[in-house]
Amino acid sequence: MGGCEANERKILVGVDEGDESMYALSWCLKNVVVPQNSKDTLVLLYAKKPRPIYPIIDGATGYILMPDVMETMDRYNNELAESRMEKAKRLCKEVHNLDVKVETRIESGDPRDVICQAAEKLSADVVVLGSHGYGLIKRAFLGSVSNYCAQNAKCPVLIAKRPESTPPSKY
Amino acid sequence: MGGCEANERKILVGVDEGDESMYALSWCLKNVVVPQNSKDTLVLLYAKKPRPIYPIIDGATGYILMPDVMETMDRYNNELAESRMEKAKRLCKEVHNLDVKVETRIESGDPRDVICQAAEKLSADVVVLGSHGYGLIKRAFLGSVSNYCAQNAKCPVLIAKRPESTPPSKY
Repeated sequence: MGGCEANERKILVGVDEGDESMYALSWCLKNVVVPQNSKDTLVLLYAKKPRPIYPIIDGATGYILMPDVMETMDRYNNELAESRMEKAKRLCKEVHNLDVKVETRIESGDPRDVICQAAEKLSADVVVLGSHGYGLIKRAFLGSVSNYCAQNAKCPVLIAKRPESTPPSKY
Repeated sequence: MGGCEANERKILVGVDEGDESMYALSWCLKNVVVPQNSKDTLVLLYAKKPRPIYPIIDGATGYILMPDVMETMDRYNNELAESRMEKAKRLCKEVHNLDVKVETRIESGDPRDVICQAAEKLSADVVVLGSHGYGLIKRAFLGSVSNYCAQNAKCPVLIAKRPESTPPSKY
């Protein structure tokens, strides 16, 4: 990162389905990561839905999930995770043109726990998140991922909210 | 700040009585501000208690405040604000040795409103806060300043929590 120190740093960036997380990554790449500082490592972390224990009623839809349905959901979740990671990696290349070390991690579980645990396990120097990590409804019940992490992560947390003036196309 | 852009940036740092805010400033100076980038301006913001309308029962003590008492409190609050700002400015000099532009602002009001309004008024690029902006009791009622700002500020918010391993002497 910038500043007068050039220690090896791990910058953990939460990637999810939302545009906010891509904006956070973009902001981090432009404002925190120093391309010249090869000691910075960007860790892109995606928390995918854990596979439900079968047979189970899906909280979101209320349907009972049969194995084949769950497999399809599993595949969909994996593909979604991969596609978001690809988008995030493209963004890193666009901004820093491979000047920055990028690692990707896809883990299963509640994003709040996955991010805080990863931050601790990796001894991240900073966690970078979009201001929304859940959909509107889920957020109303669970609170926002970013707030939870800001309270519970053991390292500094940067919450990048996209200014109203910035269209998604900006990043 | 770091990164590939070198636009003029305003980094708004909330300063208060807590060690957390000094850690946040120190972290910001070492990790976000790039001394070589003279375009960075660090704005140190302190929100001091507004003077109560007299006569009034002080919520904290339950005592009725007479004018002379209020004047003494006023003086104390001003001195406290000045001393914290001096400490923050010393920290800036220690880390960047005057390489970074520093502005100070002391405003009256609830830190949550003061910080969010200042961020908007100054078009800050990022707001940097310690993870605790209130005392333990007040926080229980009002929630934390940093969470409020993370939700309500119109720009990215960096919440720097001091790792348990870092003694206050570290900064």
